[in-house]
Amino acid sequence: MKQSRRIYRQDISLKDALHRWHDFLKNIHRTEAEHIPVEGSLGRTTASAVFAAISSPFFHSAAMDGYAVPFHETFGASETTPVKLKIDDTAVEVNTGEPMPGGCNAVIMIEEIHRDGDYIIINSPATPYQHVRTVGEDIVQTELILPENHLVRPIDIGAMLAGGITGIGVRRKPLVRIIPTGNEIIAPGEPLSRGKIIDFDSYMIGAMVLDAGGDYTREEIIPDNKELLKEVLSNSLNKCDFIVVIAGSSAGTRDFTPDVIAEMGDIILHGIRIKPGKPVLLGSIEGKPVIGLPGYPVSAYITFELFGLPLILHLLGRALPRREELIANLARPVTSPPGSEEFLRVKVGKVGDKYMATPVGRGAGAVMTLQRADGIVRVPEMSEGLAAETEIKVTLMKDREEIENNIVCIGSHDNCIDLLANRLKQLFPGYSLSSAHVGSMGGLVAVKKGQAHMAGTHLLDETSGEYNVPFLKKFLKGIPLTLINLVYRQQGLIVQKGNPRGIKGIGDLTGEGLVFINRQRGSGTRLLTDKCLKDEGIDPADIEGYGREEFTHMGVASAVASGVADAGMGIITASISLGLEFVPVARERYDIVVKNDFLDLPPFTALLSIIRSDEEFRAMVNSLGGYDTSDMGRVVYEQST
Amino acid sequence: MKQSRRIYRQDISLKDALHRWHDFLKNIHRTEAEHIPVEGSLGRTTASAVFAAISSPFFHSAAMDGYAVPFHETFGASETTPVKLKIDDTAVEVNTGEPMPGGCNAVIMIEEIHRDGDYIIINSPATPYQHVRTVGEDIVQTELILPENHLVRPIDIGAMLAGGITGIGVRRKPLVRIIPTGNEIIAPGEPLSRGKIIDFDSYMIGAMVLDAGGDYTREEIIPDNKELLKEVLSNSLNKCDFIVVIAGSSAGTRDFTPDVIAEMGDIILHGIRIKPGKPVLLGSIEGKPVIGLPGYPVSAYITFELFGLPLILHLLGRALPRREELIANLARPVTSPPGSEEFLRVKVGKVGDKYMATPVGRGAGAVMTLQRADGIVRVPEMSEGLAAETEIKVTLMKDREEIENNIVCIGSHDNCIDLLANRLKQLFPGYSLSSAHVGSMGGLVAVKKGQAHMAGTHLLDETSGEYNVPFLKKFLKGIPLTLINLVYRQQGLIVQKGNPRGIKGIGDLTGEGLVFINRQRGSGTRLLTDKCLKDEGIDPADIEGYGREEFTHMGVASAVASGVADAGMGIITASISLGLEFVPVARERYDIVVKNDFLDLPPFTALLSIIRSDEEFRAMVNSLGGYDTSDMGRVVYEQST
Repeated sequence: MKQSRRIYRQDISLKDALHRWHDFLKNIHRTEAEHIPVEGSLGRTTASAVFAAISSPFFHSAAMDGYAVPFHETFGASETTPVKLKIDDTAVEVNTGEPMPGGCNAVIMIEEIHRDGDYIIINSPATPYQHVRTVGEDIVQTELILPENHLVRPIDIGAMLAGGITGIGVRRKPLVRIIPTGNEIIAPGEPLSRGKIIDFDSYMIGAMVLDAGGDYTREEIIPDNKELLKEVLSNSLNKCDFIVVIAGSSAGTRDFTPDVIAEMGDIILHGIRIKPGKPVLLGSIEGKPVIGLPGYPVSAYITFELFGLPLILHLLGRALPRREELIANLARPVTSPPGSEEFLRVKVGKVGDKYMATPVGRGAGAVMTLQRADGIVRVPEMSEGLAAETEIKVTLMKDREEIENNIVCIGSHDNCIDLLANRLKQLFPGYSLSSAHVGSMGGLVAVKKGQAHMAGTHLLDETSGEYNVPFLKKFLKGIPLTLINLVYRQQGLIVQKGNPRGIKGIGDLTGEGLVFINRQRGSGTRLLTDKCLKDEGIDPADIEGYGREEFTHMGVASAVASGVADAGMGIITASISLGLEFVPVARERYDIVVKNDFLDLPPFTALLSIIRSDEEFRAMVNSLGGYDTSDMGRVVYEQST
Repeated sequence: MKQSRRIYRQDISLKDALHRWHDFLKNIHRTEAEHIPVEGSLGRTTASAVFAAISSPFFHSAAMDGYAVPFHETFGASETTPVKLKIDDTAVEVNTGEPMPGGCNAVIMIEEIHRDGDYIIINSPATPYQHVRTVGEDIVQTELILPENHLVRPIDIGAMLAGGITGIGVRRKPLVRIIPTGNEIIAPGEPLSRGKIIDFDSYMIGAMVLDAGGDYTREEIIPDNKELLKEVLSNSLNKCDFIVVIAGSSAGTRDFTPDVIAEMGDIILHGIRIKPGKPVLLGSIEGKPVIGLPGYPVSAYITFELFGLPLILHLLGRALPRREELIANLARPVTSPPGSEEFLRVKVGKVGDKYMATPVGRGAGAVMTLQRADGIVRVPEMSEGLAAETEIKVTLMKDREEIENNIVCIGSHDNCIDLLANRLKQLFPGYSLSSAHVGSMGGLVAVKKGQAHMAGTHLLDETSGEYNVPFLKKFLKGIPLTLINLVYRQQGLIVQKGNPRGIKGIGDLTGEGLVFINRQRGSGTRLLTDKCLKDEGIDPADIEGYGREEFTHMGVASAVASGVADAGMGIITASISLGLEFVPVARERYDIVVKNDFLDLPPFTALLSIIRSDEEFRAMVNSLGGYDTSDMGRVVYEQST
């Protein structure tokens, strides 16, 4: 018997939601103070003002190495009328930091005296307190060193200890209880089977808590059971400053969180017009805040950042940090249904003198779209989308510097690009290479439009049998660029283990009952497939499944592995990684194309040095299997205006 | 028998020094990998690439709540020709995230169907794989999740766990051995006596190590003893990745570090043309880096940042982060002797639409100048200084946001200003008030020049007997501003405990053998003193010590406490805090002056709300003693153009 479904109780704007949340927070007390040693206070927040207990310096002392003197003894000293002072009488040798001897109130630097037996000779008069650090010159007793709500830095630790403070009151770290829920959820490391989903949300949210200065504990995963959820919530109340329930706040039949919170306490709001993150729930039980996060990881991340982080910082008495922002040009148009404020994930590249923001995938469930994102663009609720080249504000998820030293590679995917990205970061920690996979043609378009520094491409010209060059001449005409070989690689048919259909080549694809899985139009692999079919005189209409497209080699391999298809065209590494078999069809050339403007940028110089002469990188690529690196780094083609 | 002094072995430019150091670092290996659970990897650095072990999702699943269907069963559905599908036959109810039932390859959202008994009715056809999350849609098995040398963020933890990774190799935290040295050095908390200096450097440097991702251990303070230093260094070599020796690298008679390192290993460089920080020493013993830091805290901080942090990051395989910078106008001229690159500490305020950078104290020993600084300006080696209003690049020590929400108060110091700063941060964690103490006249000049938002002032006009207003009319004529009362406060003579000289008032200052201590010209207290002397008909020349000036109330109190003087003019709180006695002389008005432009800025609105109506703040001020808060917040005077 299915239970009745529920619609979201509310559907308010983000602005209203934040307003309501911040109103609620006003009645939540900051965490109490705990007394800790100053030396352990880095990154903690002061719970009260810190005033100096002593003055520093604590005594008048020499600020230079030299001789301490009473300054009036040096009156009238000059080159022509030098003054002689007896050592250990009116002139006492002092090192920097030593207390001033009684009666002395100036120091003459060692470099400025001449010594003559038991005397020093001075050629100019000293001024009162010259080169003397006077009492309290640095810190005056009772002076405010740190105000309340101050985040302690290394220099603050120095200043407090200098001011005679060895222990301070800091706010206890807010403790967050994270409760993952769901029948289908398993803990990381547990055996995975169809229908099961790994609970990574709770660790990701936990890390966000730690990052903000809190602590967390994680409840064992609880199944979708209303009474159990109630019991766990009830037991959690006294063990934390607030509770995060992951999943169960949607409108599904097993989403009990809203009912349970309504029964045990109050719902502040449920359902916000944002995308992703709509089903978020904010409430309280016995005055303790409870946040119900959507289970999709991107939704969970974004809604916790919107509501969880301000709560932690409120408990600590700290202001919400402003994230770094920059203005970028949108690389391609984005449609966004009005009625929701969308959090668009983008990659940002400094291509030439402007920043280009390229939207990455938008699925709420795609954690990699957020992991690979350089920033977030907020598309307003009332907008129907953004035109290409629109200037947009990007809230950065990385340092601007990282973005500026990042090479953006958009195009065909190959595992070598991953290896190259890793090798670059390994040898040159300041540089990085990030890639988006849109197929070879998509890559050329991205390079042309200035959205990418480089593209990986393996486009076979059906007429000439030549790779890539004809396409550059046709589509990127007049753009100065360089085409460099990365690898030759084996393409072929990925088939099931043991090759039960006995497929030997392209010619077998029309076999009775055999199901093929294709690649998307515009991909190099699709061009290769079509060329091979043409060469063999096969009509695509005779191949069952020709019309169904996957977007990556691994997508094709997955379709074969799951039994949805019997064969598909792809690279050998995709086949190897899923334990499938491989029937070689063709060796193709995989090149990278770079606009000449970028060749001299430091990250590129580093990248090219790897491609051209790093033997270890070649060895890594060869160990993948199916690659030929003999031409790696060779310039295949150069194009000028 | 004094030992011979030493001059610095070298004296090279910072650029050359960095070059030499980075050359040396090339031969220092990164720390080895340690295997840790992914959930504990926040803030750690990957020691090798992380590739996905599984695809995510692991199976085709519903991306929406609704009904899973074979898409071909929906062909031709429209408003006029709806399609009926039997539930649990060709339409299976699914919740978001559930695996797709066999044979189904599309999901129709719950909102888009009508239910009719055991059937669902559809008004539009489904497209293949609509609302279906396909295998590997998020993460493809074997895909690169993180490259080597990547700093792990919360989202990375999510991505790794989603990709089936539960443990990774991260670089062991570099371990730094910190050795404080010096006969005069005591540990924090030990009884302080004349000549002793608290070792706060080692904890400050230790916190810098922690902040950069390393760990540290601290050796007990070792006295200036060459053999002992050798022994400790020798014992430390196998316990750390590098050694920091604090102090002992100068040219003093007890500075053994250079000799010891030269005897045990190699000196890379000793002595750099920077200020502060000149005596820094870089070397190695048995291939292990050793950094000899100067003992002055600002020198230690700056040189550790220049040489220690890059070493830690090198060991971790991470790039040096670029600090945020901004362009500011220098508030006043700075002279800087050529031949040293100076690290000038500045306070930065956004006053109007530009940033003003005001140099703070320059002493290498003044930790508060660095603690209070908002940033550092580097004055080039060849420069003789910078003119006022020069545009300079400031490397920030705080977030730009913090600086923009900071109220800059330059002028006369009063403990109430500290309390106000604390109260502001307590009630409004996003705002802050920072103050520099230059006396009342200095404050008016700063406000006039746009270097400060506000000033504390208590200038008594000798002729009219009126406070502050005559000075505003004269020196800040035509500038729209508001003068607001903060407190009335008691000024008087600070005298030794028990008042042994029996001082009853100003008239007693000419007493035989009595020594006075004065305040600097331009301070309100000096004006008050002079007015009182005039009123009593006393010639300043008859007061012994009239010519000696201190710059703060606490400076005066310290002079009395240390016995250098018998009496000085100051506020009662300075007297109370050092356990001295106080002879009241006059009640004066302490006001704050604000340019009208700033009154409506959010931090000011917050500040004024405290001054005008916060009873708790009044109570705090009254508890200091010697204050009258009855007029606090009253507008005393308004001036327009």
